[in-house]
Amino acid sequence: MSLIIVGSMAFDTIETPLGRREKIVGGSGTYCSLAAGYFTRPGIVGVVGRDFPKKTLTFLESRNVDIRGVSVKAGKTFHWEGRYGRDPNQRTTVRTELNVFQNFRPVLPPEFRTPDILFLANIDPDVHPEILSQIKKPRLTAMDTIRFWIETKPEALLREIGRVDILFANDEEVRMIADEINLIRAAKKLLDRGPSIIVAKKGEHGVLIFERDFLFGVPAHPCENVVDPTGAGDSFAGGFLGYLEAAGRVNRGTLRRTAVYGSALASFAIEDFGAERFSTLSRDEIEARYLSFRRLTSF
Amino acid sequence: MSLIIVGSMAFDTIETPLGRREKIVGGSGTYCSLAAGYFTRPGIVGVVGRDFPKKTLTFLESRNVDIRGVSVKAGKTFHWEGRYGRDPNQRTTVRTELNVFQNFRPVLPPEFRTPDILFLANIDPDVHPEILSQIKKPRLTAMDTIRFWIETKPEALLREIGRVDILFANDEEVRMIADEINLIRAAKKLLDRGPSIIVAKKGEHGVLIFERDFLFGVPAHPCENVVDPTGAGDSFAGGFLGYLEAAGRVNRGTLRRTAVYGSALASFAIEDFGAERFSTLSRDEIEARYLSFRRLTSF
Repeated sequence: MSLIIVGSMAFDTIETPLGRREKIVGGSGTYCSLAAGYFTRPGIVGVVGRDFPKKTLTFLESRNVDIRGVSVKAGKTFHWEGRYGRDPNQRTTVRTELNVFQNFRPVLPPEFRTPDILFLANIDPDVHPEILSQIKKPRLTAMDTIRFWIETKPEALLREIGRVDILFANDEEVRMIADEINLIRAAKKLLDRGPSIIVAKKGEHGVLIFERDFLFGVPAHPCENVVDPTGAGDSFAGGFLGYLEAAGRVNRGTLRRTAVYGSALASFAIEDFGAERFSTLSRDEIEARYLSFRRLTSF
Repeated sequence: MSLIIVGSMAFDTIETPLGRREKIVGGSGTYCSLAAGYFTRPGIVGVVGRDFPKKTLTFLESRNVDIRGVSVKAGKTFHWEGRYGRDPNQRTTVRTELNVFQNFRPVLPPEFRTPDILFLANIDPDVHPEILSQIKKPRLTAMDTIRFWIETKPEALLREIGRVDILFANDEEVRMIADEINLIRAAKKLLDRGPSIIVAKKGEHGVLIFERDFLFGVPAHPCENVVDPTGAGDSFAGGFLGYLEAAGRVNRGTLRRTAVYGSALASFAIEDFGAERFSTLSRDEIEARYLSFRRLTSF
């Protein structure tokens, strides 16, 4: 078992100008493991309530995801409701009911305790040490974060950033954490805090990957019909880490390709509501999109 | 004479957190022709007042710019004053004194009347017909625009967009003109209005080039020290059109390279106040930056 993803599993209620979906399956861990499942067999660690549909767990299994780390607890599954305006970059959170996710204390099954890559997808930085204490130090540890932790637990967040190899964050979050407006300088400041790789996700503007003496950038896939942007960043991380795990080593050639695969997975996620696109998406479509990134960018 | 640039020549007073410069040389035509001069011998058409320093015209000449289209009129040169905050994307106009530029009625010298490429850099769309009537139809006509014309002369602007081959605009301006939030759909709508190429400049996020069945994207050069963003877009257009003119033909390979050269010139322009960087910039530095774009983006 080589890529372990610890993250949220949720119901999302999503409204966009194109429609509304009630309590469809969401959560950072879900998106991320579905995306990673195209390249490797990721293990997901998460918690759901008894209301979580069995068929969704079956679907995850059918998509190459090891669900032995999912606990089912008495109570209701985490439920998030959000609304997007005509501009898909503008999102309003209508409600957040943490439910069983409130006191999420991940316990990793024995089979999950020697991962090559561990991904802490957007969870409370104060929970990181508990997770790390359960496992043999992985070859690579990665984390993502959100504005909520930057604002409420800045010290814990910086402490945990100091322990990971790869930090995923939006460009705005990179600037916030580093307290620096220029993204390049901000990323360099964060490299000084510990990680050897900073992945600055810029949504419709693509992504920049920073190492100390290396920088790679790729524009986003041009999408004419953004149906629902939810989960794009998590799908990016899943595609990125899944490909990296399958490649078996991190060098600059791999990093370039893995950023493109991450971008490809994110570009599919936004083509339908929630994680629905993953129910039909094939590996061939991913390869075709990889090639379309090459046509988009090569000169 | 093959690339003719009609645009403003101005004094700019610029304040940024890094300092203040009083009445340095600026204007869309000036930036654009300086940038184009690295690839071809552009002709500039513009107007200045008697206060415009002779040594600036000499400098333009020394940078391969044909200044026979510059008229010196009684009165003062166009003067713009602007201020940038800590975030270089945020700019406040402090004053705009049009002076001799107010009634700019460009008269092209006979040597300028058979251009291969004509660039209308950001001037009143109602002045375009006067210019076009003076010349033999060029192989390529290009224009740039600004929010001011979109807001004050939307009909004239759309009419003139219908007459050009290449439209340069910021991504926000492309969206505004097309009245469409999604940039890809917005650019396609504008392609339906006449131009065969839309160049959507995205500042720090790079640029996207649209043809009906072709799309090329390149991230911006990662700049850690943006000294003064003034003129980046005009320098982009100058590098783009200068390289295109020198290449002698427009095909997709050329378009890709020309977008990268445009990006390179823009990236140099912001490294110093006003157009000061062009006083030392060499062609070798441009070639080195072209290669650094390749390292940044290839996979």
